[in-house]
Amino acid sequence: MAITNKLIITLLLLISIAVVHCLSFRVEIDEFEPPQQGEQEGPRRRPGGGSGEGWEEESTNHPYHFRKRSFSDWFQSKEGFVRVLPKFTKHAPALFRGIENYRFSLVEMEPTTFFVPHHLDADAVFIVLQGKGVIEFVTDKTKESFHITKGDVVRIPSGVTNFITNTNQTVPLRLAQITVPVNNPGNYKDYFPAASQFQQSYFNGFTKEVLSTSFNVPEELLGRLVTRSKEIGQGIIRRISPDQIKELAEHATSPSNKHKAKKEKEEDKDLRTLWTPFNLFAIDPIYSNDFGHFHEAHPKNYNQLQDLHIAAAWANMTQGSLFLPHFNSKTTFVTFVENGCARFEMATPYKFQRGQQQWPGQGQEEEEDMSENVHKVVSRVCKGEVFIVPAGHPFTILSQDQDFIAVGFGIYATNSKRTFLAGEENLLSNLNPAATRVTFGVGSKVAEKLFTSQNYSYFAPTSRSQQQIPEKHKPSFQSILDFAGF
Amino acid sequence: MAITNKLIITLLLLISIAVVHCLSFRVEIDEFEPPQQGEQEGPRRRPGGGSGEGWEEESTNHPYHFRKRSFSDWFQSKEGFVRVLPKFTKHAPALFRGIENYRFSLVEMEPTTFFVPHHLDADAVFIVLQGKGVIEFVTDKTKESFHITKGDVVRIPSGVTNFITNTNQTVPLRLAQITVPVNNPGNYKDYFPAASQFQQSYFNGFTKEVLSTSFNVPEELLGRLVTRSKEIGQGIIRRISPDQIKELAEHATSPSNKHKAKKEKEEDKDLRTLWTPFNLFAIDPIYSNDFGHFHEAHPKNYNQLQDLHIAAAWANMTQGSLFLPHFNSKTTFVTFVENGCARFEMATPYKFQRGQQQWPGQGQEEEEDMSENVHKVVSRVCKGEVFIVPAGHPFTILSQDQDFIAVGFGIYATNSKRTFLAGEENLLSNLNPAATRVTFGVGSKVAEKLFTSQNYSYFAPTSRSQQQIPEKHKPSFQSILDFAGF
Amino acid sequence: MAITNKLIITLLLLISIAVVHCLSFRVEIDEFEPPQQGEQEGPRRRPGGGSGEGWEEESTNHPYHFRKRSFSDWFQSKEGFVRVLPKFTKHAPALFRGIENYRFSLVEMEPTTFFVPHHLDADAVFIVLQGKGVIEFVTDKTKESFHITKGDVVRIPSGVTNFITNTNQTVPLRLAQITVPVNNPGNYKDYFPAASQFQQSYFNGFTKEVLSTSFNVPEELLGRLVTRSKEIGQGIIRRISPDQIKELAEHATSPSNKHKAKKEKEEDKDLRTLWTPFNLFAIDPIYSNDFGHFHEAHPKNYNQLQDLHIAAAWANMTQGSLFLPHFNSKTTFVTFVENGCARFEMATPYKFQRGQQQWPGQGQEEEEDMSENVHKVVSRVCKGEVFIVPAGHPFTILSQDQDFIAVGFGIYATNSKRTFLAGEENLLSNLNPAATRVTFGVGSKVAEKLFTSQNYSYFAPTSRSQQQIPEKHKPSFQSILDFAGF
Repeated sequence: MAITNKLIITLLLLISIAVVHCLSFRVEIDEFEPPQQGEQEGPRRRPGGGSGEGWEEESTNHPYHFRKRSFSDWFQSKEGFVRVLPKFTKHAPALFRGIENYRFSLVEMEPTTFFVPHHLDADAVFIVLQGKGVIEFVTDKTKESFHITKGDVVRIPSGVTNFITNTNQTVPLRLAQITVPVNNPGNYKDYFPAASQFQQSYFNGFTKEVLSTSFNVPEELLGRLVTRSKEIGQGIIRRISPDQIKELAEHATSPSNKHKAKKEKEEDKDLRTLWTPFNLFAIDPIYSNDFGHFHEAHPKNYNQLQDLHIAAAWANMTQGSLFLPHFNSKTTFVTFVENGCARFEMATPYKFQRGQQQWPGQGQEEEEDMSENVHKVVSRVCKGEVFIVPAGHPFTILSQDQDFIAVGFGIYATNSKRTFLAGEENLLSNLNPAATRVTFGVGSKVAEKLFTSQNYSYFAPTSRSQQQIPEKHKPSFQSILDFAGF
Repeated sequence: MAITNKLIITLLLLISIAVVHCLSFRVEIDEFEPPQQGEQEGPRRRPGGGSGEGWEEESTNHPYHFRKRSFSDWFQSKEGFVRVLPKFTKHAPALFRGIENYRFSLVEMEPTTFFVPHHLDADAVFIVLQGKGVIEFVTDKTKESFHITKGDVVRIPSGVTNFITNTNQTVPLRLAQITVPVNNPGNYKDYFPAASQFQQSYFNGFTKEVLSTSFNVPEELLGRLVTRSKEIGQGIIRRISPDQIKELAEHATSPSNKHKAKKEKEEDKDLRTLWTPFNLFAIDPIYSNDFGHFHEAHPKNYNQLQDLHIAAAWANMTQGSLFLPHFNSKTTFVTFVENGCARFEMATPYKFQRGQQQWPGQGQEEEEDMSENVHKVVSRVCKGEVFIVPAGHPFTILSQDQDFIAVGFGIYATNSKRTFLAGEENLLSNLNPAATRVTFGVGSKVAEKLFTSQNYSYFAPTSRSQQQIPEKHKPSFQSILDFAGF
Repeated sequence: MAITNKLIITLLLLISIAVVHCLSFRVEIDEFEPPQQGEQEGPRRRPGGGSGEGWEEESTNHPYHFRKRSFSDWFQSKEGFVRVLPKFTKHAPALFRGIENYRFSLVEMEPTTFFVPHHLDADAVFIVLQGKGVIEFVTDKTKESFHITKGDVVRIPSGVTNFITNTNQTVPLRLAQITVPVNNPGNYKDYFPAASQFQQSYFNGFTKEVLSTSFNVPEELLGRLVTRSKEIGQGIIRRISPDQIKELAEHATSPSNKHKAKKEKEEDKDLRTLWTPFNLFAIDPIYSNDFGHFHEAHPKNYNQLQDLHIAAAWANMTQGSLFLPHFNSKTTFVTFVENGCARFEMATPYKFQRGQQQWPGQGQEEEEDMSENVHKVVSRVCKGEVFIVPAGHPFTILSQDQDFIAVGFGIYATNSKRTFLAGEENLLSNLNPAATRVTFGVGSKVAEKLFTSQNYSYFAPTSRSQQQIPEKHKPSFQSILDFAGF
């Protein structure tokens, strides 16, 4: 009996080991699961209230909208900031693999400040959103500086050192920028010749011996290059004096004077062609009426954008207007809201799920979705936010209750075309009547009514553009996933 | 004793829990394993019988051959179908990463049917395999329609809405298509303005308010756009009446009339250059004799193909012919068998293993294979099947017992060259005699015998092209892996 | 009691099963873990001794330096070898993803040897490091042979069969080669028409029936093509006789005679434009003085390199010289040390960690590093080793104690520019004085001293170029990670 009991106890111990072993194992396995990220950063469903306007405002939970909290502070001080969106593939790798090598960032410089010289291992294009300043490009052979102002588009070629001055006494200088890394997809870095409180000089990458030989100066002098002593307390954006501003601006040319740069330095002619700014508002708007204006610089027409295949655009909409539904054939637009709020609606056949921590395609190889449901992408997009419009996706923007301004960068824009689905010139009115009948099941009368009643092109007034409805509680957005089944 | 028994029972229960736990766990783990696919879809070893013809018919198990069951039905009804091959990287990621962004599909429309208007977020090129029809391209500014017939090559530019009519009363219209997605590698979608039984209209992506404003019509009328009521029971390919066919075909031009489209719409000139069809049989065959013909449209000569760097080809072989061994220097050919069966043989230095559920490179980073074995790729390829010929790989096609027709799409074709290894013009006969001696260990006599005995070029007769051997039981293919060691 | 005991024994058995089951399971799971590679091959920290010269020689542990043991022997015999570096992404996937599709290799052929005919599924460019030989290109339509000598740059177009003879009686023929695969990123293979001891003929990929028909010869003759009988004991590099050399060299033209090839074969004009060699030393050095010379062939100027966007360069430095700090705007240089040793210093803002088996980015998606530390990359690079200089990274080379020769391949070179940070023409001396003051915190006097004291351009003497210090124990390199904080 005792022996039996001992055996039983031994057995119990063995069993415990087995069970614990299995359980501990389970824990290990759990660690194989993908990290539960995105809770803080990713787009998230918000408990929504109804719209104050009676709009059928059903914001959906989707990966095409980046709110302010999606940005990371790359640099931040009281003199200004640089904020960067994560790689588009971070939360939706399958959806955005095509634009993996593009990054979006914002730069803001307070009045009378200076962004210290630096270069990137990336090509960049920025649009001046607000303010006035001077940008100077410097190489070992030449230098050139330009006045910049709202609507200017500036290409910064990869590896070209540049610095920016906000020359204005009162207005911040604000830039929206798209960046195209050259070393590896979606990642780039800043390289600074001089140290600051926040970063080191790239001369810190060299030994004193090398620096002393390079500059042919005693090692004692090198402190100026590599230590932070003098600059402690100084960020990469710095307050400067009116005299310094004057000195920095005195040789700057205006974009209108472009291509008049001195001739003697032929070896950098290519660079000068690339870095000369131009202004979007000097381009006739391709779409324009009382309800909106759309200015676009196309890579086919601008050397500055040609090799990057990037278009730069500026859209203004008055309150109560609709940018009529359309799609781009090849370009994906990365759009930044400069002012106001609007309703962004887009149709996508790509699947994304609600209530998950990550968008499909987080894994390596996505299961193919053969179903042909159309998903509604609906967001209230507001100042400081970014939304993505992929190629082929029909979309619209509705400036319900505010004037609305947005700038956009069109990726792969070179051979892209826009097709409008509504308005005076629209796809459907061009359909063969027989095709219309077979496709929509409607005769010519109804088709005519449907497809030719909108007399405005591109931008149209909404039914309520006249009547102003007071709003009680309008949430900035609202998230009810609706699988397009109204 | 009773206590002991109770303990024992408790123990038994605990053990059961432990064992079940472990076992259930194993099940969970199994789900972590890569899906056991390919058993149904992937190429598989078949218990083989000998060939009825005495051919040394050793089909090998390899990833270069896609049989009918590899296709997925994207759409299927009694009016027609659209079938798509999975991404080439699905089963052999390392081997096919270079063609990841290309997809192959088949379209078949029954007589007097209509493929409803749609666009893709992809560029596409199709070859008409059989039948007669009309394709119409529509944008918001222009439209143009073309008669299409066997051998026509049609480029559908990304984002251009098009619809196709099978105008013939008796013959199906069949198309082989290669697609190049613009949004993300290897994935694309269809976008339909009108709903059908199988898919939603992209207008479902918009709210009623937006649609009502866009079209400037009351909401009641919108049902025509977004509901499926009228179209229930109608697929994306639909039966149409002779009158409708007449109406759809009446403005169509023939490819021979190309470039005569109206001049007034200059803004879509680019698109018209791209979408105008041309016919492969109107091109002189680059290789032609009694045993076969090879027509090829090269991207250097056709604007329609230039920006995609894709070649389109049509090969006919008579029974008992051999397409002499050769290789392409840069292009990978995706080849579809339009008629008959033939023996495809190819030499590859890349490794693939038999009896596994997946081809190498399924994992992230493949171990490099330094061995220089040459692997035999041998398949009987038949009507409706696809095979891949990567760049640099010597291959041959042997139409043993049937006439054979195949069409092919050459990816990265722009600077590709063909090099024949046998035939009147061949690589080996051009070798310096000293090189031949050192390389093959044979003198000029034997070399001459070996390398200049074949007087035919490109296509040659087989020794048994005259004698017809009756076959008893010929399996459609047979799979004996042979590491090329005969 | 007996029953109880039986039960207990049964229980014990069950438990054993459960435990064994769990344990065996753990083993299975362990096999899921990524292989622990890199211990043998990856860059590794070495216990360092001080430099014999009093140099502040702090080699850091970093992924930019590939030592001899990083190479794999692809072929090795007493007649010569082919050695290949692993894919750059193998150990540092995130850092080198941009150059994933480029491979570096070395070829060495002993005097009077012959590299048998073969082609690659890759484009290749090689620089002749040493020796004299003949390369012959053969297609099915044409052939052409060229004398090659030190400094010659040769483009081998993808899929073009070629063979090389070392025509010299005493000196090895040595080549440094960059390869650009066409089938899938970073992987390529050799294709041989004839068998050797080490590899099979690609004719082994075909059945005897097909070969017999192709060549129109009896099967008995095919042994010459596919067996190894004759060639057993013969590698892909073979000893040949003076007569054979004479025969192989007799029709070769010299690069200086280029573009004089016969006109009758117009169809291969493109290939002849690509494969005609040229010599780097016939190009005026872009940088040249008593301390060094830098010859560079730019893809803008050479058809041979244009479509690959690759530059080829040759640098000589005399002992005690410094290649002044500079960076490339777009190109990443893969550099091979042909002779001597030198100190390579580079600044990088990208993070890499010491003491790990792999560099960051081994996982799928790297956590973004927002910190702006500059990391010192310091290595003693010696004959036979390779180092990588990514775009945008300031770097320098210091030939401390030996003359130094290196060749380099610049990837993405087409629009790349160099910017020097020191020397007579330098970036910093071009800065606006106000910018200098605000950026470096120094007035014009100090700035002038710092930025204009170096009167040499590009190559400068070191302080000790005159005085020769005897060295006692100089380790080939040394690894102390220093996060640039001196």
